[in-house]
Formats: sequence, structure tokens, C-alpha cells
Amino acid sequence: MSETMIDPSVIEQDNAAREANLRQDYDSLGERLDRQGIAIDTIKDKVARFGVAIPSWGVGTGGTRFARFPGTGEPRDIFDKLEDCAVIHQMTRSTPTVSLHIPWDKADPNRLKDTANRLGLGFDAMNSNTFSDAKGQANSYKFGSLSHTDAATRQQAIEHNLECIEIGQAIGSKALTVWVGDGSNFPGQAHFTRQFERYLDSMKSVYQGLPNDWRLFTEHKIFEPAFYSTVVQDWGTNYLIAKELGDRAYCLVDLGHHAPNVNIEMIVARLIQFGKLGGFHFNDSKYGDDDLDAGSIDPYRLFLVFNELVDAEQNLDDFRPAHMLDQSHNVTDPIESLMVSACEVLRSYAQGLIVDRKALSGYQDANDALMGSQTLKAAFRTDVEPILAMARMETGGAIDPVAAYRASGYRQKVGEVRPASESGGGGIV
Amino acid sequence: MSETMIDPSVIEQDNAAREANLRQDYDSLGERLDRQGIAIDTIKDKVARFGVAIPSWGVGTGGTRFARFPGTGEPRDIFDKLEDCAVIHQMTRSTPTVSLHIPWDKADPNRLKDTANRLGLGFDAMNSNTFSDAKGQANSYKFGSLSHTDAATRQQAIEHNLECIEIGQAIGSKALTVWVGDGSNFPGQAHFTRQFERYLDSMKSVYQGLPNDWRLFTEHKIFEPAFYSTVVQDWGTNYLIAKELGDRAYCLVDLGHHAPNVNIEMIVARLIQFGKLGGFHFNDSKYGDDDLDAGSIDPYRLFLVFNELVDAEQNLDDFRPAHMLDQSHNVTDPIESLMVSACEVLRSYAQGLIVDRKALSGYQDANDALMGSQTLKAAFRTDVEPILAMARMETGGAIDPVAAYRASGYRQKVGEVRPASESGGGGIV
Amino acid sequence: MSETMIDPSVIEQDNAAREANLRQDYDSLGERLDRQGIAIDTIKDKVARFGVAIPSWGVGTGGTRFARFPGTGEPRDIFDKLEDCAVIHQMTRSTPTVSLHIPWDKADPNRLKDTANRLGLGFDAMNSNTFSDAKGQANSYKFGSLSHTDAATRQQAIEHNLECIEIGQAIGSKALTVWVGDGSNFPGQAHFTRQFERYLDSMKSVYQGLPNDWRLFTEHKIFEPAFYSTVVQDWGTNYLIAKELGDRAYCLVDLGHHAPNVNIEMIVARLIQFGKLGGFHFNDSKYGDDDLDAGSIDPYRLFLVFNELVDAEQNLDDFRPAHMLDQSHNVTDPIESLMVSACEVLRSYAQGLIVDRKALSGYQDANDALMGSQTLKAAFRTDVEPILAMARMETGGAIDPVAAYRASGYRQKVGEVRPASESGGGGIV
Amino acid sequence: MSETMIDPSVIEQDNAAREANLRQDYDSLGERLDRQGIAIDTIKDKVARFGVAIPSWGVGTGGTRFARFPGTGEPRDIFDKLEDCAVIHQMTRSTPTVSLHIPWDKADPNRLKDTANRLGLGFDAMNSNTFSDAKGQANSYKFGSLSHTDAATRQQAIEHNLECIEIGQAIGSKALTVWVGDGSNFPGQAHFTRQFERYLDSMKSVYQGLPNDWRLFTEHKIFEPAFYSTVVQDWGTNYLIAKELGDRAYCLVDLGHHAPNVNIEMIVARLIQFGKLGGFHFNDSKYGDDDLDAGSIDPYRLFLVFNELVDAEQNLDDFRPAHMLDQSHNVTDPIESLMVSACEVLRSYAQGLIVDRKALSGYQDANDALMGSQTLKAAFRTDVEPILAMARMETGGAIDPVAAYRASGYRQKVGEVRPASESGGGGIV
Repeated sequence: MSETMIDPSVIEQDNAAREANLRQDYDSLGERLDRQGIAIDTIKDKVARFGVAIPSWGVGTGGTRFARFPGTGEPRDIFDKLEDCAVIHQMTRSTPTVSLHIPWDKADPNRLKDTANRLGLGFDAMNSNTFSDAKGQANSYKFGSLSHTDAATRQQAIEHNLECIEIGQAIGSKALTVWVGDGSNFPGQAHFTRQFERYLDSMKSVYQGLPNDWRLFTEHKIFEPAFYSTVVQDWGTNYLIAKELGDRAYCLVDLGHHAPNVNIEMIVARLIQFGKLGGFHFNDSKYGDDDLDAGSIDPYRLFLVFNELVDAEQNLDDFRPAHMLDQSHNVTDPIESLMVSACEVLRSYAQGLIVDRKALSGYQDANDALMGSQTLKAAFRTDVEPILAMARMETGGAIDPVAAYRASGYRQKVGEVRPASESGGGGIV
Repeated sequence: MSETMIDPSVIEQDNAAREANLRQDYDSLGERLDRQGIAIDTIKDKVARFGVAIPSWGVGTGGTRFARFPGTGEPRDIFDKLEDCAVIHQMTRSTPTVSLHIPWDKADPNRLKDTANRLGLGFDAMNSNTFSDAKGQANSYKFGSLSHTDAATRQQAIEHNLECIEIGQAIGSKALTVWVGDGSNFPGQAHFTRQFERYLDSMKSVYQGLPNDWRLFTEHKIFEPAFYSTVVQDWGTNYLIAKELGDRAYCLVDLGHHAPNVNIEMIVARLIQFGKLGGFHFNDSKYGDDDLDAGSIDPYRLFLVFNELVDAEQNLDDFRPAHMLDQSHNVTDPIESLMVSACEVLRSYAQGLIVDRKALSGYQDANDALMGSQTLKAAFRTDVEPILAMARMETGGAIDPVAAYRASGYRQKVGEVRPASESGGGGIV
Repeated sequence: MSETMIDPSVIEQDNAAREANLRQDYDSLGERLDRQGIAIDTIKDKVARFGVAIPSWGVGTGGTRFARFPGTGEPRDIFDKLEDCAVIHQMTRSTPTVSLHIPWDKADPNRLKDTANRLGLGFDAMNSNTFSDAKGQANSYKFGSLSHTDAATRQQAIEHNLECIEIGQAIGSKALTVWVGDGSNFPGQAHFTRQFERYLDSMKSVYQGLPNDWRLFTEHKIFEPAFYSTVVQDWGTNYLIAKELGDRAYCLVDLGHHAPNVNIEMIVARLIQFGKLGGFHFNDSKYGDDDLDAGSIDPYRLFLVFNELVDAEQNLDDFRPAHMLDQSHNVTDPIESLMVSACEVLRSYAQGLIVDRKALSGYQDANDALMGSQTLKAAFRTDVEPILAMARMETGGAIDPVAAYRASGYRQKVGEVRPASESGGGGIV
Repeated sequence: MSETMIDPSVIEQDNAAREANLRQDYDSLGERLDRQGIAIDTIKDKVARFGVAIPSWGVGTGGTRFARFPGTGEPRDIFDKLEDCAVIHQMTRSTPTVSLHIPWDKADPNRLKDTANRLGLGFDAMNSNTFSDAKGQANSYKFGSLSHTDAATRQQAIEHNLECIEIGQAIGSKALTVWVGDGSNFPGQAHFTRQFERYLDSMKSVYQGLPNDWRLFTEHKIFEPAFYSTVVQDWGTNYLIAKELGDRAYCLVDLGHHAPNVNIEMIVARLIQFGKLGGFHFNDSKYGDDDLDAGSIDPYRLFLVFNELVDAEQNLDDFRPAHMLDQSHNVTDPIESLMVSACEVLRSYAQGLIVDRKALSGYQDANDALMGSQTLKAAFRTDVEPILAMARMETGGAIDPVAAYRASGYRQKVGEVRPASESGGGGIV
């Protein structure tokens, strides 16, 4: 039995005031779904088994190039972060794992493992960092890392990734996620092809160090302000990487890393079709890589992604993409944003599960565009909150995670022991 | 010796008034290039050998969904179109081939061949059309063609493509370009994967009918207004198609078919690197698939594409991408727009040729971003017009194609014999 | 009592099978809303009074630049169109008016009025057309209309708009909507300022002819493929127009006429704040001016627009923006798409009505970003379909408009009397 | 006579090796321009009088949200920055003023003035900073500054702006530039209208403190990653601000602050037409607010902006927009990037000056779209480098600023006395 960060009685008390209404709403929704031939409990059980990983860096407060405005009680190290993650999981019962970032979360592996065990958490994919210079690092990544023109710098980046694998093995992770900031700021700065060849060569060295039961996820991204090109700019290049590397190499899709207007759910479908969808960094965005709370800007897009995932889950063997949140919380309590986002991911999953796929398929075959569209919309507009809430309540979580969390006073308490972090940014304009 | 549509004396006369200045400008530019170790005559000779194909449909007047405003003397059929194309080539000496569209240009192959021969023209890639319904067609493409849910409709589309090959063989073409309007207008209308599987199956049948000395070009496009998805939405999907089909299948890049902000020159580099760049539909655009005159909106982008092409030309064996214009002329005389656009393509090629690639390579290796950028800019800002004009003049073309063409009175003359075409559009809002 | 196009018994029969479930769903939703202090009947009554205009051109089948694929039983003239519009209103009880397009819908005003009366319809804003050339028109709009360099062409466009007002007065319309296709295709083609001055001058002449009880709506649009600039490119220019013209001049917002990523709901708020929001052309889009069914691509965006409208409705006197659909139906039965779209507009309105504005305001004042966001999401994810359906049923409409419409066999019947229209497009590439 | 940071003999020596070629190129260009009726010396003299301000923050090394990689010899304070700015002006003779950022550049005004005088520099617009929290600040700008819901926070922001004016008056500045990071991250977080009302109220207080001979510039920006809305999102809102405030309030256009695809040169034209163009933050960008070197990504766009400016300069009285660079230099020596960027701005100005405006006007009146387009292209493709270089040389600057600067060893020298700055970023993902 794992240690709880928040006294379970807080949750129980908050739930007590909500349970009667929840049961009524669950029953009336159950009755509606039953008319459509859907057993609500089956959906609820699937939702209860669905987990999404929390990125360790997500529990801190993010910022822009211009400023970072600290929050109260920000975690001081990975152990504080794990405690915050445990709160999220305690409340939502849907975030059983944490994804670490090295070197930010570097610590004694045994202590990491023990802490996670104690808190009832596991470890998801490891994340390497060759997009910024660590203190004391021999070679700078200013002009690239795995694709740098200098062999020693590339080697340093390769070794860092191998070290991430090593740490991951010690703590029970089974995947490595690689996102690089390599690219160029001006036309002419880099030779596209030679730069990508160097990247591929380096990644082959990383792949050789990948244990047999691990997966390697590479992440594409069209830009970060200041870039003219990135080495892994889109899913096309990402696919080529996964293909060149081998069977355990897969593409990771971050919802905010695409050109404007791009149809992301279709990219998801293509990667599934060609066996290279590794998983997701869920978040939402309006303009660029905004890293906002999942489903906060365009919830229908998130649903359409899950429409593809549920379709694949029902049609493919061994389809198990990794689900991770990747967000930056500038103006909210990160714990609240992550709880809400995890719920949004589950909401989309639940809505994906109640799509009438047999009817949909018939409309598609008959080119009944209107009814195809309406079939998805009907699932999307179903308010599945009672399903999510019931799944949480039955597994010990909160019917209303934000309310219960606020009632717990957790943020104020950690604010007392964790000193205020530094205001940041400034100077970068 | 081929027949000329315009009396050569018109060109001679116009050239006569410009030749002295041209020679002076050519010499002073030659002197400047010489300082950089570049022999201007070598550049000029390469430019003189460079050809870009004219799309037969480009010599007509285009329109928007809302309206089409006819021009004077629009070509009535493919034979009129060939005559207009001959004018373009006569003036610019850089557009020796024409790319046909079937069924629009369907005619007796022998007559096509004879006419082209007589006019000194050849035939470039054939273009099939399964994005609109031809009169009397058994099955409609309203809901797709090569990817349609109905097998008979797919078969009809396959056979149309095979017919295009057949006609092409009769007239000396060596390539087939396939662009389809297949996709969907609403989420849920089509199953992404099954739709793409059907497309691939159909294309395999087309590929089987491809002669051994032919190439197959597929074209991607993110959208046309009204679409939610297109089957071949981007270069990633296009690459997968070419890979699935075989060695003679290549990707065609239309500069206007990408999501906003996308780095097209990088896509070109990737396709070159993986052996799948088939060629181009050159044009320019500001917002969508605007099909404007090449280089009229963002000339530096066109140069950056040619920077990649010249780099590949100098490093690869057997690198011979197809160069075609693909434009729609709504407010200009199509002949003028096509002459100017062909010149712009050659301009970018010439500027690509004078890039100091050895210096560039050194800056790239040294991460001297500023000088890498400046090296490209230095080539781009060189006014190579004297090189282009000299290449034209020496091969019998016009120093100033638009001026000479206007002096010829060609448009007025055909306006007298070709009746006004219908005003179009209307009703589609 | 107005004539019905479809036998009311068809609706009654379809409703009969659904009524019991609807009442159950309505009651359980009522109970949930009651907990939040919201009386469901009040919402239902407001929804029942909400109307959205149908564009006459929307009942025909649209197309792209490349092709138009006709549908069955397309309306032959405005009288057929009015009958189709009557069907939409009969089924949904929420589309009491029709917006005409001149010259497409030009007909004897008395007959127009009588037909509309007979069918229980009224007339919304008149739409002028100076973006295409009408047959026999003296001057062409190829190079512009109200902003043309030629005074006679501008005068012709002015007079056309005045004629639209005149027709509108005869049939009871109270507004004129002006959208022009004026702009330029290339940098340098037009002088931005002089072109806009000419536009303003022309519009002042139109405004002078505007009756005192009319409103003038101008519409902005960033582009149509082929454009480099449009004269009324965005809301900034649109605002300047309305300001220059006078108190009865307002801005019309078409949801598909903006640059990628633009925050449309914020533009709506700004126009409301400065007293210049005239109304909407509702539709949805993924890439450009796609004119897809309202709410089919990004339903949350439509809700966010209504969040602003409901806020204004509750805070301002005399806030009465015009609500019109403006869609193009390429692959669906236009009647079905318009029924579904009208329902989506009402859905967003209903969801906007149940936003807890007092709580929202409190969260905003307290900078509780998470709860502000969640307050809107809570309203959005409420499935208000029972409210909409009950409002329809109680006013004689269909619980499930598409099902009842399909049951009526209307499309097949008109397909028998209305001949197939021509396949279109082709040639414009 | 001002103090020089670099020994003039370095420049003289570098120039000596280039002067003969420059004279030859200048003469041959002069001859070509003469044929077009343009006196090259007149252009050169105008170019020599054109100045663009350097932003003090631009001489430091910038970064992304993820990392900042320091450069050698970064300036430690405003006095170091002024020395770097003096180098730029010494080399290019076109950057006579510096734009300060408060509080970053806060220092004793007399020392600021004396230092600038000594270095031959003046001060351009003052920039306030309410987008990040200064140390010891009473109220945080985490949730906004001039538009904050809390009156005390707004007052603090107002006073900061008034202090900027005060400092500016002491050092001879004549303008205040206001860019705020106010906005929201999620729908519902802020009430658009009330937030903008608060902003306007605060700005009115700032405006009241504006000296009579000063101008106020407000800057719009569509987004910074993480934003859902910004208070001053586009030129429409910016115009409303300037209009509300009064005659000395103007709009500032930063080329990188617009939605994708937006026609910026047209916005420039509109602001000129309505008397509200205040000036520019020049830079270039491919995706977002990339702050890259002016003209490095889309040089034709920069030219098109200057095409509007030169047109206005020739047609309007008292047209004197402020020209400032606003860039972030992550991978280049900031001094080099700023020298090159200043040259690019002058290049566009020179090219704008040689546009044949009489011919252009004629083509525009005649709707000769092709020749209108070609007229601009002809000016743009003219290599005016000899004009720029001659203007520099004749006023004591360098023919090749980057080469002369590198020859001076300035960067290495300051690297010895200025300690390495901290590597930054990290933690913000």
C-alpha cells in the first residue's frame, strides 16, 4: 500500500457531498448509452485502466522567452516533483507513471526507485537533454548536438543518451525519448543533408545501446522561435529516422509541434498504418508550441486523435502507444493543470470508445459524409464526465479533483517548506 | 528548322535597340564574377541548356471559385495551346517542352506529334485528371477516384491513367504526373487508413502499366478550399507512396501545396537525400495554392530551392528532376506570365550556380552562421539578368521577351481569330 | 398558416418514436441544470426564439476551382430555393429568413414576397455581387469593382448595390451585405492606398442610398486562392470602413475569412466593444475559406464566439447582430447540411446561455485561470441536445431533423421534377 | 569629434584593398541607373542620411525558452552596450542612435548622455518593461500589467512608463515604445473587453505624462508561445489604441508579430493612410516572432515595406516613421548581425528609391498587372551594394563592415575584459 501525500479523508469528504448526484448522472447516462447498445460499465472499466504519464518538468512553473513568474511551493528537486506527481495520481487515479528528464532529474537511482515505490508511482520514458548546456559540460550544444559538425560534440551527445538509458534501466523505464534543438537559424548556416546524415549516424549509435525490451521515441518539431530549420522538422523526417534505425524505433507526436492548419489526426493514422507510432506528448496550442493544458483550446482535435487510437486499438494486435502529457504551466498551479489535462485525455478516450464504429464504417462505405461527420459529433457531444468521475471515485480518487485538491491545502503546505524559486527570463528579447 | 509563330524580325528589331547596353552590362558583370573566380560564359552556357516545361492549361485564363474573367484570344484547343507555347519558347528559348492534361488535351496523337515537331516543341510529363468528371464518364469522382470506396470507380480512374500513358507513349512523353482531388470534407467522412490503402492499391495497378523508361510523379497537396483532408497531404505521405511503388516512382513538389510556414527547400533536400525527388511544379503563392507567377511573391524561396538543386547537381550522378511551371493566370496575359516565370526559374538557377560553394561549406563546418547566410545572399543579390538575356539573345530569343512579344501584336492577332471564351464561375460561393 | 413542403405527419411520425426518450433526457438534464440554478425551460424558450438566416445560394451544390459535382434535384431558381429553405425551417423551426444574392436571385419582387409569405419565410440581408461579371454587363470586374481604377466601372458597381437595396425594400429586407473580390494578384499591381480610397468613395455613394432603417454590412476576407491582397483584408480595415461610412455601417464576420491561428472570438469582442459588430456568416474551416458546416471542424471555437455574443446580449442594450449561415456544400445534401448547421449554431447559443457568468467573472477578477477555463469547458461539454430537440418539437419541428427529412423522401421527389444541373469546373487549374 | 572604439586605420586598411573595385562597380551601376534617368549620387546621398536605431538589448546574446548559449565578450551593462553600438555605427555609419530598455539599462542619466556624446551616439525611443518582474517590485506582472485586474498593479505599470519618459527626457529621447506581455493563456481566463478597457485607461494615464514633443508607440503582437490571446493582438487593436489616445500616439510595426501569411506591407499602407504609422521594429522571421536578421529570410518582403515607405515619403509632408532594429542573436556575433541588418534595411530603402514610380503608377492605372509586378522586381533585383558601400566609405565607414570588424579583433579584445555570462534557460520546457 503506497503512501498518500494527501489525507484520504479529504477526498472522502469532498466525494461524500458529490456522490449522490454522480450516481444519478451516471445512471441517466447509462440509460442513454444502453439505448445505443453500449454498456456504461465496460467503458468505465476501460477508462479506469487507462494511464497517462506525467512529465517531471511539468510540475514546475514554466515561462516564455521573456519572463518566468514563479509559483508558490515549486518543487526543488526530483523528489519534490515525485511527491507532486503522487498528488496528481492520488486525485485522478490515472497518472501512474512519471517521465524523467536528465540531467534535471539526475539522482541516485535507488533513491528514485524507492521514492517512486513508496508513492505508488512507476517510471515512463526517459528524456535526454542535448538542447541546453549542462554545467561543466565539455562541449557546447550552441550549434547542435547529435548533428553537430564536430565529432567530439556528437559523441558527447550520444553518451548522454546512453547514460539516460542506463539510468532508466536502473529505475525500470522501458523507453528513451529524444528531442533535439538542432537545426539552423539562417539559410546557408547548415547543409541540410550533411546535418541530417550526422544526426542519423549519431542516433544509430544510440540505438545500438538500446536494450532489447526498450523502445526509442524520436520527436519532430517544426520550430522554436529563432529557428529557420530544425533537423527533425516533421513526421516525414521522423518516419525516415524510425525506419533507418530499426524495429524498436518509433515516432513521438507532440500535438503542438506542427505547422499551422496541419491535420494531426491524419498523421497519427499514417504512422499507425506504417507501424511507427510510438506515442504522444499531449497538450494544446493556439499558435505555436504553446504547451497549454490538453483539450483547453481545441477539444475536438484531441477527440479526433483518440478516434484514431481507439480504432487502432480495436483493429491491431499489440498496439500500445505511450501516452504522456507535455505541458508548460505559466499561470496555473501545475498540479491542477496536470490533473485537469489527464482528465481531458481520458475524456477523449471515453468519447472515442462510444463512437458507433459499425455505423461509422457503413456511412464511410456509402459516402454518407453528413452522417459520418454526425456519428463522430454525437460521441463527442456526449458528456462522459460521470464515467470519468465514477472511475475515479471507485478507485479511490476524487470526483472533483480540483475541488478536493484545493480543500487539501497541499499547495499552501508545500509553499511553507519549499522556498520561493527565482523569477526568471529577462534579457532574452 | 521549326516554324516560328512570330516573325523573327520582330525579335531582331527589339533586340537591336538593346544589344549594346546588354553587352556592356554583361561585360561589367563578367568582370565582377571573374574577381570571384567565376567564368560568366560557363554560367551562361549552363543557363542556355536549362529548360522548363510549360503546362498546356497554363496558356488559358484561370479563375477562382467565384469567377473567371476571360482574356483576349484564349486558345480553343490543344493546337492553339501549342502555338502559344511555341511563342513562349521562341521568345525565351528556355521552354522546349509542353506538359499535356488528359482529357482536356486529348487529340489524335499523330497530329499532336506533328504539330509539336513543326513548332520545335517536345512533350513533357502527361497529367491525368480524376479530380473532375469528364462528359459521359460512367462513374463520378465526387467522392474520390483512385481511393474511391467503389471498385468500379477506382478501376475507371486506373484505366484513365493507363490511357494517359498510352497517349504519352505515342507522342514521346516519358513521365506521368498524378494529382488527385481525393480526400474528405469532414471528420468521419472517410477512414484515413482504408482510403489510403485503396489509393496505394490503385496506384500499384497504374505503376504496373508504366513503361520501363518512364517515371511516375505523384503530387502532394495539403488542401483545396472545402477539404478537411487530402489523401496525399504532404511530402511524408508522398514519400511513402513512391517507396511503396518502386524505383521509377518519385515525388513531385508543387511550391504552393504546403502548410503555412513550411520550409520547402528542406523538403527538397530530404527528397533528394532519399532518392525520391521527381521534380517540380514551379509557381508562387502568398496564402494557399495561389498558382502565381514563379518568384513573384518570395523570390528568395525560389532561389533557396535552386540552391539545393545546384548542390545536388554538382554532387550526384544522374540527378535530373523534371522542371515544370504550374500556374493559373487570372489577370495577366498567360503568355507573358509564363515567359516571365520561365525567366525567374532560370534566374534562380543562375544565382544558384554562382554560390561560392567551397566557401559556404567552410562556413558551415565552422558554424559561421553569419557568413553562411551572407554567402547565399551575395549570390542572390547578384543581378544575373545580363546572363539570362545574353543566353536568350545568342540562341535567337528576345533580350526583353515581354517587350518583343508586345511589339509582335500576337495577342491581338489571335484575338481576331479565336472567339471570346465564356465568363465562368458564378454560383459557387 | 403557411404552406408546408413536407407533410407534417412525416414529422409527427418520426417524432412519435423519439418523444419518450427525449422527455426523459430533457428531464434528467433539467435536473442537472437545476442544481446549477438554471431553469431549463428558460433556456429552451430563448433557443426557440433564436433564428439564423439561410443563404439562398447555400441550397445549391458548391464546388472547388477544379470541379463541381452536381447533386440530385438542385434548385433551378430562387423559387425552388425558397422551397428548399422552407423545408429547412419546417424541420428545425430556427431558420425563418432567407438571404438573397443579386443577380442570381433576381425575380419579380411581388412574386418573391408572395412565395415567401406562403412558405412562412421572411427575407434577411440582401447580397450584392460585383465579384463576377453578369451577362451583358457593360464593364468587367476583372480588375475590381467598387475600387476599380475606371470611374464608369465603379459607378456600375455602385448602381448594382443601390439596385439590391431597391429590391430589398420591395421584399422587406432591412440590410445590405457587401463582399467584393477586389484586390490584387501581384505586388505592384495596385496602389494599396489609392485602391482603398476608391473603395471608400464608392461605398459612401452606396451608403447614401441606404434607407434610414437599414444596416450596411461589409465583409472582410484575407484571401481567395490567386490573391496577393484583398481590399478589405481583415477586421482592422473593415472597422475603418464602418467608421468612415457612418452609424448604420457595421462589420460582418465570416468565420472562415481570417489568417491562420487568428483569435476570432477576440475580434468579435473588439467589434462589439467599439459598436461595429454587424453580424456573422457562420461556417467552419480547417485551412482557408472552406465554407464547411458550422461546428464541424472546431466546435469549441463556435462556442467561444457565442460566449462573447451571450455576454454582450446580457450587458448591452439594442444588441442584435445578424446571424446568417454561409456555407458551400460539395459532398452532402445541402438541406441536410444547413439543418445540421442551424442546429449547431443554436447549440452554441444554448451552451453560451448556461455559462455560469457570475462565477466566471469572479475567477477572472481573481486571475484563477484554471477555473475560468473550466467554467467555459463545463458549459461546452454539457450535452444540450435535449433542449434543442424539445424546442423544435414543441414548435412543430423534428426531434431529429435529418431522420425526418430522409423519411420524407423530399430529395428524391424534387430530383424527379428538377433536371440534373451541369457538372462544372474543369479548365481552371 | 567622437571617440572611436576601433582604430580608424583598421577600416582604412580594409577599405584600401576594396576601393578600386568599388569605384568600378559604382560607376557601372551609375551608368545603368543613368539610362533609367536616375542619378546614382542622389540615391547615395539619401542612403547616407538614413539612420536606423540599434536596440540596446540586441548587442547581447539571445536565446529560446529552452536555452541560451552565451557568446564571447557579452556586454555587462549599458555602457558596454553603448560601446558595442558605437562599433556598429563606426563601421556602417547608419546607426546613429540607441534605443534603451528600462530597467535593464537604468543608469545615471548624465553618465548615459556623456557616454553617448563621447561615442557620437544619440538616444532613440525608450522601451518600458512590464512583461517581466524587476527585482524588488511590489506587484507581479504574472497576470498582466497595464491591464491587470488589480488597480495597484496597473498603477505600478503606469508609473514605470512615466519613469521611462522621465529618464528619456534627461537623455534626449523623444519617444516611448510600449510592448506588454498582457493577455491570457486560456479561453475564459480574462474578459476580453474589460481587460482592454483597463489597458486603455492605463495608457491614457501614460499618455497624459507624455511631453508635447514626444511620440508614443504601441506595439501589437499576435502571440508568444503559451498565449491564447494578447491584449494588443494586431494592427486593428493597435489602431484603436492610437486613435483613443490622441495625436501623438502611433502604431509600431514589428515585422515578426503577425499571423502567418498576413500581408504586412498592406498594413503599413493602411496605417500610413490613416496617419497612425509610428515606426518599425525591423527583423525577419520564418515561423513566429523569430527576431532574425532583417532581410535574412524574406528580403522581398522587406523591400515591399520600403516600397510603401518611399511612396509615402514622396507624397506626404512630415512623414518620419521611427526605424529600429529589434532582433535576437542566438548563433551569431550580435555586432555582426546588427551591422548586416542595418545594411539590409538601407538596401531596401535604396531599392525603394529606384522604383520607377511614374511608370508604376501608369501600369496600375492601366491594370497592367504584369508590368506593375515587373517594375517592382526590376528595382529589387538591382544590386545596390555599390551605393551602400560608397555611402559608407565616403562617411568614414567600412566598405565591407564584417570584414573590417573581424580584422579589428574587437570581439576577442572585449572577450578578455568582459567575463563570460551565464548559460541560461533550462527548466522551461
